[in-house]
Amino acid sequence: MIVVMKAQATEEEIRTVVRMVEELEYHANVIRGVERTVIACAGEERGPQHSLAHLEAVSGVERVIPVLKPYKLASREVRPEGSVVDVGGVKIGGRAIIVMAGPCAVESAEQVEQAALAVKRAGAHLLRGGAYKPRTSPYSFQGMEAEGLTLLENAGKKVGLPVVTEIMDPHDIDLFVEHADMLQVGARNAQNFSLLRRLGRIRKPVLLKRGMSTRLEEFLMAAEYVLSEGNPNVVLCERGIRTFETATRNTLDLNAVPMLKQMTHLPVIVDPSHGTGIWSLVKPMALASIAAGADGLLIEVHPKPELALSDGPQQLRPDKFEDLMRAIRPVAEAVGRTL
Amino acid sequence: MIVVMKAQATEEEIRTVVRMVEELEYHANVIRGVERTVIACAGEERGPQHSLAHLEAVSGVERVIPVLKPYKLASREVRPEGSVVDVGGVKIGGRAIIVMAGPCAVESAEQVEQAALAVKRAGAHLLRGGAYKPRTSPYSFQGMEAEGLTLLENAGKKVGLPVVTEIMDPHDIDLFVEHADMLQVGARNAQNFSLLRRLGRIRKPVLLKRGMSTRLEEFLMAAEYVLSEGNPNVVLCERGIRTFETATRNTLDLNAVPMLKQMTHLPVIVDPSHGTGIWSLVKPMALASIAAGADGLLIEVHPKPELALSDGPQQLRPDKFEDLMRAIRPVAEAVGRTL
Amino acid sequence: MIVVMKAQATEEEIRTVVRMVEELEYHANVIRGVERTVIACAGEERGPQHSLAHLEAVSGVERVIPVLKPYKLASREVRPEGSVVDVGGVKIGGRAIIVMAGPCAVESAEQVEQAALAVKRAGAHLLRGGAYKPRTSPYSFQGMEAEGLTLLENAGKKVGLPVVTEIMDPHDIDLFVEHADMLQVGARNAQNFSLLRRLGRIRKPVLLKRGMSTRLEEFLMAAEYVLSEGNPNVVLCERGIRTFETATRNTLDLNAVPMLKQMTHLPVIVDPSHGTGIWSLVKPMALASIAAGADGLLIEVHPKPELALSDGPQQLRPDKFEDLMRAIRPVAEAVGRTL
Amino acid sequence: MIVVMKAQATEEEIRTVVRMVEELEYHANVIRGVERTVIACAGEERGPQHSLAHLEAVSGVERVIPVLKPYKLASREVRPEGSVVDVGGVKIGGRAIIVMAGPCAVESAEQVEQAALAVKRAGAHLLRGGAYKPRTSPYSFQGMEAEGLTLLENAGKKVGLPVVTEIMDPHDIDLFVEHADMLQVGARNAQNFSLLRRLGRIRKPVLLKRGMSTRLEEFLMAAEYVLSEGNPNVVLCERGIRTFETATRNTLDLNAVPMLKQMTHLPVIVDPSHGTGIWSLVKPMALASIAAGADGLLIEVHPKPELALSDGPQQLRPDKFEDLMRAIRPVAEAVGRTL
Repeated sequence: MIVVMKAQATEEEIRTVVRMVEELEYHANVIRGVERTVIACAGEERGPQHSLAHLEAVSGVERVIPVLKPYKLASREVRPEGSVVDVGGVKIGGRAIIVMAGPCAVESAEQVEQAALAVKRAGAHLLRGGAYKPRTSPYSFQGMEAEGLTLLENAGKKVGLPVVTEIMDPHDIDLFVEHADMLQVGARNAQNFSLLRRLGRIRKPVLLKRGMSTRLEEFLMAAEYVLSEGNPNVVLCERGIRTFETATRNTLDLNAVPMLKQMTHLPVIVDPSHGTGIWSLVKPMALASIAAGADGLLIEVHPKPELALSDGPQQLRPDKFEDLMRAIRPVAEAVGRTL
Repeated sequence: MIVVMKAQATEEEIRTVVRMVEELEYHANVIRGVERTVIACAGEERGPQHSLAHLEAVSGVERVIPVLKPYKLASREVRPEGSVVDVGGVKIGGRAIIVMAGPCAVESAEQVEQAALAVKRAGAHLLRGGAYKPRTSPYSFQGMEAEGLTLLENAGKKVGLPVVTEIMDPHDIDLFVEHADMLQVGARNAQNFSLLRRLGRIRKPVLLKRGMSTRLEEFLMAAEYVLSEGNPNVVLCERGIRTFETATRNTLDLNAVPMLKQMTHLPVIVDPSHGTGIWSLVKPMALASIAAGADGLLIEVHPKPELALSDGPQQLRPDKFEDLMRAIRPVAEAVGRTL
Repeated sequence: MIVVMKAQATEEEIRTVVRMVEELEYHANVIRGVERTVIACAGEERGPQHSLAHLEAVSGVERVIPVLKPYKLASREVRPEGSVVDVGGVKIGGRAIIVMAGPCAVESAEQVEQAALAVKRAGAHLLRGGAYKPRTSPYSFQGMEAEGLTLLENAGKKVGLPVVTEIMDPHDIDLFVEHADMLQVGARNAQNFSLLRRLGRIRKPVLLKRGMSTRLEEFLMAAEYVLSEGNPNVVLCERGIRTFETATRNTLDLNAVPMLKQMTHLPVIVDPSHGTGIWSLVKPMALASIAAGADGLLIEVHPKPELALSDGPQQLRPDKFEDLMRAIRPVAEAVGRTL
Repeated sequence: MIVVMKAQATEEEIRTVVRMVEELEYHANVIRGVERTVIACAGEERGPQHSLAHLEAVSGVERVIPVLKPYKLASREVRPEGSVVDVGGVKIGGRAIIVMAGPCAVESAEQVEQAALAVKRAGAHLLRGGAYKPRTSPYSFQGMEAEGLTLLENAGKKVGLPVVTEIMDPHDIDLFVEHADMLQVGARNAQNFSLLRRLGRIRKPVLLKRGMSTRLEEFLMAAEYVLSEGNPNVVLCERGIRTFETATRNTLDLNAVPMLKQMTHLPVIVDPSHGTGIWSLVKPMALASIAAGADGLLIEVHPKPELALSDGPQQLRPDKFEDLMRAIRPVAEAVGRTL
């Protein structure tokens, strides 16, 4: 931690800061520059009680700059070779690109089975589908809830695909653990720490989506909540951030893919369906995600998007999804991956 | 709802859209312009099953523009005179400016009592304090939890102030209802719909903070979750949004105050402590909030900010808070309010 | 400047950085922490050739953190008492609040004279009006250009108000110096360094608007372009930044007012007309600006907004402007200012 | 244009709007919905005098929604097959991917020649280099200006590559036309309409970079400024937008690539050097750009990035650039393009 003193800080103020730093059991190095003094603090920085950040409230201090990354267990440094997460036998984070596909929401047994058959036939590795839906409006379709969970599980079993679905309430965990192979945390719950902490106490893999305004460092801190409770099976998902641009629903931040691969050992996948909000952009952005180094994709596929109860405009028809899967293979191979 | 067809849409495509609109029991008005055709749909737009938005997935459609506001119960139109919310006898939304103040986190009986005494003496109307803290890092101080809740309640009783505190998990509601006078939903849970829905089933007032990237319309939809379940006691709180600016912790969006007052009948308060993240900006932005038309303020006050376990740099010392309270009165009077 | 080395940086890499730092004539202090090494560089940091930032391209370096502020002449430290800028006898930056008002665009002699009379009568101190208009579309009204400049000048003379108007092209400077009392740089040219540099070579006051995505530090660097060429007469104007919010045209960042007042000695005014884009929000946000500490306001006033050739929805009618001026006085007095 | 009336608009207000619409020579279709009335206006919408947008200032009007796209000449609809722009014999917009590479700034004859040789050898098609540099700080290296332009031209001739370089001041156009093959407009001048208009009066190709907070529609309107003055040779360049994320210098918005390809016939290239600001992210994001459908790339290459006078951390060494060029080919082929 580096404490930058104000240009006009007094000697007394500098001495006070040094004393406070040393009371917190850090070593204080005072460096006097031409215009201002900085105090470099050496020691272990991450303990809850010892936050030097609060020195910003001390007289004469201009700002406090952290040097260490705030995440530990998620850091690439602890596992340089990268993690592989096993979801019902499907391995995410290896050389093979993994595709999760299915409808935004489970709407009926028939709809989810049609979707499951279609995505299986096209080569997807996991079946996705929402049973509990976080909708902006209380008047919108909220999902089939527990019934939808069973329909999804059945559809997955029928076609032989593990299933991934979104959990919103920490108290539903037992139900989800019983019926799903991977539990998704949606963008709106990206910093729902009660939920994250509980997910850290199970072993089922967690698919953690980036929040709409979550910085990458905060994204890794959210993962750290799960990891620090004991569940190492976390996969990160870039799904678009919120910016000033209105031509697309979100701004898919593909910079995040190679940046996260440098920062963390966790697998990183991309959701171009939410990341664009427009079905005709899903294919090019799926290919771009693979080229950028993503370990997999999350794609919304619906038998009849124009009748979908949620997010119709961004779901692919089965034939478009087949076309996408065919297009992925050569790009994957071009960057040394397989499909 | 207005459906804008593509410039090159065929007659067949236009007919299909008209048919789909009418199947959803709307009346379709086809208007042929010089370059393109638009279809204006008249009818009740908000039902969950009848979302015309999905027509964007239909061939020939360029985009679908909603005309009605998606919120009903929160709309100013249903209560033009504005709502007043009663929190333990304190009325928010009337002519009087209401100030809620206290420490970011409850840290000890002594600390919260000192803070309570200080804010009461300076003229605050409610005592705030965090018992359960949503922290970016799992390694940061997470709050004293249930014990903190009791300490806060006791401090409030001692000085005679109702208390407001943040709830993070829907399953803690009974505990909070017992010990607090107003339940706060923090920015990170602004779209935690499980939590919002449960808060709609109690009668205790809810202080709903805007999320870091929540648009005003979405903010009102979050309020609508609470209102539509039956709890009319909602107060909105602008607390800064996330932008590209890094000089301040957040960008306090005061445009939101008069804009919300036009859109909704719910009271609107402002949190300049989080909205700036810097104690020396709290006073000017508190005054600006009042001048912009806010019904109240949420201010962080700590006996010793430099020793605070969270958010030290943005908490006011008691003497600075007294100074702030003295400065508020003339500004409130200048805009026809009282303190 | 602080150089943070990677956790796994070798001794060889550390030595190389130290050598490079010393070749640039800084003193290098090597501080070895528990996890990583930082190198604190003392010396004068702002020279063009000596940028240590490029050390980020050196092997073993994780990041380089600047300690000094990049602006010098704009810094509050060089003139703690604040600057006062004289515009045709009107002093901006003193105790008195200064109001600049007039139409978005000069449209005719009659329109600008009506507006001039109205704003003068209501108590404005300067007349604003656009002759050269930066419009998003080449098909929109582009302003009356040189003719508009003369009409504005004449209207100002008629009612006895100095005039402020926007300059877009550095080669029009002589024309503007002849006809206007203050030259405005619009948000779209906030980093048009050719223009800023030329404005630094005259003595006429410059009204520098913040760009739509300009950070405060960059805003002061833009002012520094003018100051460093020799023109000390710069007034800053917050006019709203671009964020994800779409309910208002821009997000007026009032945090910027007290923050800038701490960072710089230059006067700071606010433009709530562009900052909101909605006439009914102009009054509350004008009052909020004053309460936040602004030295003045820039307000769009048009005799008939519904017929305006640009920005109709955000211009005030003369009677609304009079109402605003009446409302400003008590707020100004409440914060120790005059009108 | 659709005019949405307020819920409580009176018949008198509706009649007034209809009359105003018809005075502007549009046909007004009044559609009465369950809750509110909308008025659909048919006619040619883009004329400067006839802007219906100002109806938002009329009593009873809630908002005005444009239906037509504001750009004409840039629209894909006018040239569905796409444009090909010829830069000194190099064709941008065809099946072949075009790579422009070279140093951020021209620093010396030796440096630019080394860079030119390196990029030519690796297979680049154009040489880029900055002679006039828009720098945030007036104290940073501002470029070698006219001398730099000549050095760049000479280096290009020596290795046989056309050159592209940034123009900042409209009055330098003759000089640039003489010495460069393509004129770049930088992000900070993306809405410098004086400059854009002048570039519309020459025939030399223009490389138009997106501004840091420019929406795609505004980006095309900037292109429309050039096109509408008569110069059809415009290439668009996505270079990263400004968001809340601080881990990367900018957020490269690759959604913009397929979205722009749908909106416009103009070629679209990507600058991953500025779009990330970090050399180690340039290669993955360059590959992602190609996979997303970009027609080319702009890459910063410097013989010795750690000694660069500007933007060192994002420039590639020659060997890294060769590696990048080798990696592009298979990705280009995977998406049906060539290198």
